[in-house]
Amino acid sequence: MCGVFGIFNHPNAAELTYLGIHALQHRGQESAGICSSDGERLHVHRSTGLVTEVFSQAQQHQLPGNMAIGHVRYTTAGESDHLNAQPLVFRYSGGQVAVAHNGNLVNAQRLRTQLERQGSIFQTTTDTEVIPHLIARTGPPILNAVQDALRVIEGAFALLFLTESGLITAQDSRGFRPLSLGKLGEGWVVASETCALDIVGAEFVRDLRPGELLTISANGLESTPCLAPNPRAICSFEYIYFARPDSEINGVSVHDARKSLGRRIFEESPVEADVVVGVPDSGIASAIGYAEASGLPYELGMMKNRYVGRTFIQPSQELRQQGVRMKLSPVRSAIAGKRLVLVDDSIVRGTTSGRIVRMLKDSGAKEIHLRIPSPPITHPCLYGIDTARRKELIAAEYDVPAIQEKIGADSLYFLSAEGMVEATGRADSSPNRGHCLACFNGDYPTPIS
Amino acid sequence: MCGVFGIFNHPNAAELTYLGIHALQHRGQESAGICSSDGERLHVHRSTGLVTEVFSQAQQHQLPGNMAIGHVRYTTAGESDHLNAQPLVFRYSGGQVAVAHNGNLVNAQRLRTQLERQGSIFQTTTDTEVIPHLIARTGPPILNAVQDALRVIEGAFALLFLTESGLITAQDSRGFRPLSLGKLGEGWVVASETCALDIVGAEFVRDLRPGELLTISANGLESTPCLAPNPRAICSFEYIYFARPDSEINGVSVHDARKSLGRRIFEESPVEADVVVGVPDSGIASAIGYAEASGLPYELGMMKNRYVGRTFIQPSQELRQQGVRMKLSPVRSAIAGKRLVLVDDSIVRGTTSGRIVRMLKDSGAKEIHLRIPSPPITHPCLYGIDTARRKELIAAEYDVPAIQEKIGADSLYFLSAEGMVEATGRADSSPNRGHCLACFNGDYPTPIS
Amino acid sequence: MCGVFGIFNHPNAAELTYLGIHALQHRGQESAGICSSDGERLHVHRSTGLVTEVFSQAQQHQLPGNMAIGHVRYTTAGESDHLNAQPLVFRYSGGQVAVAHNGNLVNAQRLRTQLERQGSIFQTTTDTEVIPHLIARTGPPILNAVQDALRVIEGAFALLFLTESGLITAQDSRGFRPLSLGKLGEGWVVASETCALDIVGAEFVRDLRPGELLTISANGLESTPCLAPNPRAICSFEYIYFARPDSEINGVSVHDARKSLGRRIFEESPVEADVVVGVPDSGIASAIGYAEASGLPYELGMMKNRYVGRTFIQPSQELRQQGVRMKLSPVRSAIAGKRLVLVDDSIVRGTTSGRIVRMLKDSGAKEIHLRIPSPPITHPCLYGIDTARRKELIAAEYDVPAIQEKIGADSLYFLSAEGMVEATGRADSSPNRGHCLACFNGDYPTPIS
Amino acid sequence: MCGVFGIFNHPNAAELTYLGIHALQHRGQESAGICSSDGERLHVHRSTGLVTEVFSQAQQHQLPGNMAIGHVRYTTAGESDHLNAQPLVFRYSGGQVAVAHNGNLVNAQRLRTQLERQGSIFQTTTDTEVIPHLIARTGPPILNAVQDALRVIEGAFALLFLTESGLITAQDSRGFRPLSLGKLGEGWVVASETCALDIVGAEFVRDLRPGELLTISANGLESTPCLAPNPRAICSFEYIYFARPDSEINGVSVHDARKSLGRRIFEESPVEADVVVGVPDSGIASAIGYAEASGLPYELGMMKNRYVGRTFIQPSQELRQQGVRMKLSPVRSAIAGKRLVLVDDSIVRGTTSGRIVRMLKDSGAKEIHLRIPSPPITHPCLYGIDTARRKELIAAEYDVPAIQEKIGADSLYFLSAEGMVEATGRADSSPNRGHCLACFNGDYPTPIS
Repeated sequence: MCGVFGIFNHPNAAELTYLGIHALQHRGQESAGICSSDGERLHVHRSTGLVTEVFSQAQQHQLPGNMAIGHVRYTTAGESDHLNAQPLVFRYSGGQVAVAHNGNLVNAQRLRTQLERQGSIFQTTTDTEVIPHLIARTGPPILNAVQDALRVIEGAFALLFLTESGLITAQDSRGFRPLSLGKLGEGWVVASETCALDIVGAEFVRDLRPGELLTISANGLESTPCLAPNPRAICSFEYIYFARPDSEINGVSVHDARKSLGRRIFEESPVEADVVVGVPDSGIASAIGYAEASGLPYELGMMKNRYVGRTFIQPSQELRQQGVRMKLSPVRSAIAGKRLVLVDDSIVRGTTSGRIVRMLKDSGAKEIHLRIPSPPITHPCLYGIDTARRKELIAAEYDVPAIQEKIGADSLYFLSAEGMVEATGRADSSPNRGHCLACFNGDYPTPIS
Repeated sequence: MCGVFGIFNHPNAAELTYLGIHALQHRGQESAGICSSDGERLHVHRSTGLVTEVFSQAQQHQLPGNMAIGHVRYTTAGESDHLNAQPLVFRYSGGQVAVAHNGNLVNAQRLRTQLERQGSIFQTTTDTEVIPHLIARTGPPILNAVQDALRVIEGAFALLFLTESGLITAQDSRGFRPLSLGKLGEGWVVASETCALDIVGAEFVRDLRPGELLTISANGLESTPCLAPNPRAICSFEYIYFARPDSEINGVSVHDARKSLGRRIFEESPVEADVVVGVPDSGIASAIGYAEASGLPYELGMMKNRYVGRTFIQPSQELRQQGVRMKLSPVRSAIAGKRLVLVDDSIVRGTTSGRIVRMLKDSGAKEIHLRIPSPPITHPCLYGIDTARRKELIAAEYDVPAIQEKIGADSLYFLSAEGMVEATGRADSSPNRGHCLACFNGDYPTPIS
Repeated sequence: MCGVFGIFNHPNAAELTYLGIHALQHRGQESAGICSSDGERLHVHRSTGLVTEVFSQAQQHQLPGNMAIGHVRYTTAGESDHLNAQPLVFRYSGGQVAVAHNGNLVNAQRLRTQLERQGSIFQTTTDTEVIPHLIARTGPPILNAVQDALRVIEGAFALLFLTESGLITAQDSRGFRPLSLGKLGEGWVVASETCALDIVGAEFVRDLRPGELLTISANGLESTPCLAPNPRAICSFEYIYFARPDSEINGVSVHDARKSLGRRIFEESPVEADVVVGVPDSGIASAIGYAEASGLPYELGMMKNRYVGRTFIQPSQELRQQGVRMKLSPVRSAIAGKRLVLVDDSIVRGTTSGRIVRMLKDSGAKEIHLRIPSPPITHPCLYGIDTARRKELIAAEYDVPAIQEKIGADSLYFLSAEGMVEATGRADSSPNRGHCLACFNGDYPTPIS
Repeated sequence: MCGVFGIFNHPNAAELTYLGIHALQHRGQESAGICSSDGERLHVHRSTGLVTEVFSQAQQHQLPGNMAIGHVRYTTAGESDHLNAQPLVFRYSGGQVAVAHNGNLVNAQRLRTQLERQGSIFQTTTDTEVIPHLIARTGPPILNAVQDALRVIEGAFALLFLTESGLITAQDSRGFRPLSLGKLGEGWVVASETCALDIVGAEFVRDLRPGELLTISANGLESTPCLAPNPRAICSFEYIYFARPDSEINGVSVHDARKSLGRRIFEESPVEADVVVGVPDSGIASAIGYAEASGLPYELGMMKNRYVGRTFIQPSQELRQQGVRMKLSPVRSAIAGKRLVLVDDSIVRGTTSGRIVRMLKDSGAKEIHLRIPSPPITHPCLYGIDTARRKELIAAEYDVPAIQEKIGADSLYFLSAEGMVEATGRADSSPNRGHCLACFNGDYPTPIS
């Protein structure tokens, strides 16, 4: 997963982009970058690390101009490399272009092989790098080149391009990833989530449409319906886990959706218990929803240590075996002797859930009834979420009773797909109300290469 | 405020001290330090910054030995200086000694002047530095010297000393600051809060007694009743605001106390409303308590940005005036059009509360009923909490209606002192159940110099 | 200017490359980089800064494999950018390749425009980057692709390529830049100067031949006469100024050449004086030669401050006007009251020479007879030495008497081109004994685009 | 060894101190520090590392005020610690004081034990730290306290004190270490060597007198003859090895002294040879002197690698055994087949000399006649030069023929003490013309505790 942010026509473009990608930090902690344009040339700074680690006061000042794009990136272990940090910047026959990408291209490998056969050279291992090459092969004008490129790539993409003179933003034909447009004074802002519009004081205007190509320049906004729209297939995990609670995606508040999922899971699977506990951070709203629906008290049953970041030195294996733990701590007095409804957003490999259940039992919880406000994940995501390979997905290998036993819970229930779709509450006439359910049922919206 | 941690007789002493002070990070973000002993000499590393910033894997390895003490420090603005980072280490005629201190000495300035007149030189501006000098003036043996020093200093102190061969820990005669003893295998652990015992897998043994001096060495534990105990005067703010919810202080769970404070404030000041919202982090448990007592739903009405740390570049004044904000974000859908009971732990200067009320109203809150689970702060703390100078305390200058108007709330209620003392629930026969109430009523437990 | 170093078949490949490029540090202080191959993939680290700044112990260990190439880079002001640091690494249809380049391509801009028109994208502003693109356009096998590329580029190049499985090295058809081959145990070493062979304990084997392409792999050495050789045109400044005195270039010791130049300039321009002083570092050997030939004593008339590096904070303009100075300091007692023969390697803009003459006069020198062991520089170099633009070359604008006056010397003599060529002492039957004299007479050996 | 620099009444005090200690960098590369006074309080920055490593542009700006003192420190291996970096800064009953010290106190250990017994605590392991304690014991006024302290300490010291309002400088009664006073505009400068006066554009006024105490304040200079002067005992190694050639010590140019030592050693020990080679840097001037006296040509027989600093990663033991080498490189063409007179400043342990002789022989030198312009070192220095312990001094254990054999030279001659004293050329009527000869003959000028 990643987050993108762009701004056009504001004197503090880089400074606001810093705030914008900082508000999107939860979408990617691996690397961060900003590219600005002063009207004549592009200026870029990017590196591995959190936004606050990558940027210092001094570095902001070296990013002049009244337009900029930014990116935060999440990567799977081992692939982290500062060469892969975005925005990617390149020079082609039409000048300089920067690109920031949220999503995943399903035909990137095939395109890359083709391009290499034609003499292209690659600097990164990202799927995104095929886009600059496709643009360069078409050549200027840029709008034309971007359109050609979009028609060739397949998969999930919310894209931002910066040239010397303007911004171009585009979304794939199914709208897998959120992308919203806002207005700030005389300028425009584009961001992965509305929380980033809020943070810079921009007013939400509308979401990008599937297949839309939007040019933002001195001539104003120009929308080109570039790709024939397919039925919307927004990633369900944006609501369940990924987006910030204070964001709205396609008109639905993420916080409301999560509470509603909690209420729905109570309806589908009520249980006798003493308190409801959510796993921080994304399980909490659903736990509150479950509590409300059930009439059980909501409890702060565990705490997340705020200061565990990338520079934290993990305790040695030896110490962990002695019972040393980090990140999550039980609040013993809130759980000891009690029957818990425990709400966590999802179960991927099952190892974290198992560890949490054990920790709570060690702290005196009498019973643990695990409630998951999303269906079992049985298929890998091809569109940008790192859900692990199929073999590692516990629900691809085991049925619910087996998972319950492995995790050590006293009961376990996954929300039904129907329940999830309905509770989220999207007003969308597409199939599944516009949700992508591929990771739950293997029904991938795109052709797969 | 500060946090201290010490460990004796464990092969990973420095590594566990790192984890211990990391778990106490909420007690001080200004500087961090660890001093270990290998039985022959002391090794120290300390600097300004968070624990994870000050220590790297490499630096841990330079702290050999099976005993160590650590410290995290909080300072008022402008006084931050890496020379002030603790543990302080010094050589006197009896060898090397390190000292880590949580609390504040009320007669430090007078002692310092006396010592300087007798030829002592000072390296820091901390109150703590008088202790090494007092020890050096007495000379070895160390236990004797520490006792002499403790009898001269006045105020709040939870102290840890490390010598080449052992640990000494001591508490002032009123027990202002928490200090707990734990057992870990064949070794011993001392920490400001029980959450730090939990994190390293140590079993809680007991709290230190007011006036107690405890020596931990190869000969085992030896407790010396060093100072005549006075009535307990534990800092109320440890329960209200400072300690971690998963800690227990003098047998009372911090989380339970906060929920109970929330329930009590409902009893004292019920109000018609739609939802209860807590200001993160310390207002949340009280908000949950209020919700439970009132039957109103608890809501996640605002979010704290997890990544705003010391390296975050604040938006410029110009941008802040344009509506740019950081740290706390409203969750619009949870509050718009609603009447809020807003629970915050305390009001010091009133500026933060005013800003939060304004932000929530801007996000559509219809009414805001501010409930504070602690009495108005009218007097400065002398014992280690930076509550600002008297003139800056809004409750020292204005009455409740005036504060309500300044903050812009639709109603405002502070918990009564009796309510606070009873709800916290300490089983203590001392006056005020062993609470220090000085900042609420000016009744300072110590003589004031 | 730059320096290159490569090694094949040694278990400490990266460590020796570190030593090798460190020995070539005088050829470029702007950036440094090493790329190693472990037989399966390439590993690279490079950045702006000195070799010791760019590499730490830890970073060496992340460069595994038994073959590596390294590079140090010199850039003109303003163009310094860590993206331009070499070796450049790229992926094309045949796999990964790294390239390190010493020299300058005269048709790079034209090739770049062509490549961009064909859809190539560029990451750097270096002339070198056209080479990867040309290789990628041809495609594998690599040897074929390199040959095609070499036939297209024009200018000065000593090139090192590293693939997953071996080294390729090549030189332009005129041999502008030195490049030597050595043997180290079972492995091979290639370096810009023999001093880098010496430092790693390698035995000198031979210099590369103009136009030669040499492949070093598990199959041993294979030399391909790739480009039709032109008459040798080694850069004269390698002897005069650039190379290290303990290197040998095309069989001639740099130290011997410099002493001989000093002797020759005495023959061409003797003068009555008391002592001979050389400007450190490259003027010293010529000064010793002049002293020997003239019988005058050689004197340490000035000192170079060893610790003035890139991190040195220059004194403010205000202080410099008050007489504060750095880098060179006069040894007053050695020059006061004396008539000096002052030997400096060359005069480019004339500002440094003027400042030195003034400094020595201020320190009491009675007369200063400036002797330059190279002819006046009247034309810019196109082959990799930053001699400034034509307009800035003092000898392109003024004749010798005018230069003498501007500099403030009591007399001034430039060595004749014939004198320089003969004194250097190359055994070469090419015109000008194989020297490039373009910067002295505008007679550029290559066609100029 | 160390270097000190102080300045009073200049608006760029810290900036000039930076330049001053940078010019004294050869006197200590272990740590550096500057303390300035803005008239109200002291500001200090110091750390391990070179001057350019310790200070950045930003750090200079945090050192406000128009007076400052600075220090560079040399330490023996293992004792390097940033706590030991000077200037030491302390608060006593009279306010803040900083102290910078060049030299070594012979009774520091005894004083320290006494002070500790009286209750003093120590932060460093330096001998210097007794001075602050002595000052604090006397108490204000500072001048009085400094005088008392000076009368108690024994040994070598060139001292600089900075208070909020002025500078105090003092020298021991024998003048072991150089210390010069200069004038810069309306202000004053004090420095270990005149080269530091030169660099900031100050005019040399005079050397401090043995036993002198000089106060520099708004009231001007005030000289107090504090200690009864003893016969001058300037360290001979200041001339031979330590000081910069462009400095003058007690009226004698260091460069002249070294050349003269070279001439004298030719007179005492002529030898048939082809060339004279000096070991860089301090052997070069003596080699030139020998060459002049003998009529033999002076040659650049070896080079010192300029970029080998503290961050250089030393080749592994394994590689060194394979012949990898650093720091000094032979210039083969200058020495191959020749009989060398090799001039090195001194022989301490003999290991470096042995390695150099071997390296030159490996590079083809036919004969090596080692000439040392100082007598054999048979006794350790007690006054601040790290000449190793007695057992490690090769000349304390072996006679000259044995040393010659161990080193592998074809002949070896040490200058006589008389020769050294006369050649240095001091105009001083004290015994040995004011030289300390303790390390040559064990005749220590101070009582030894």
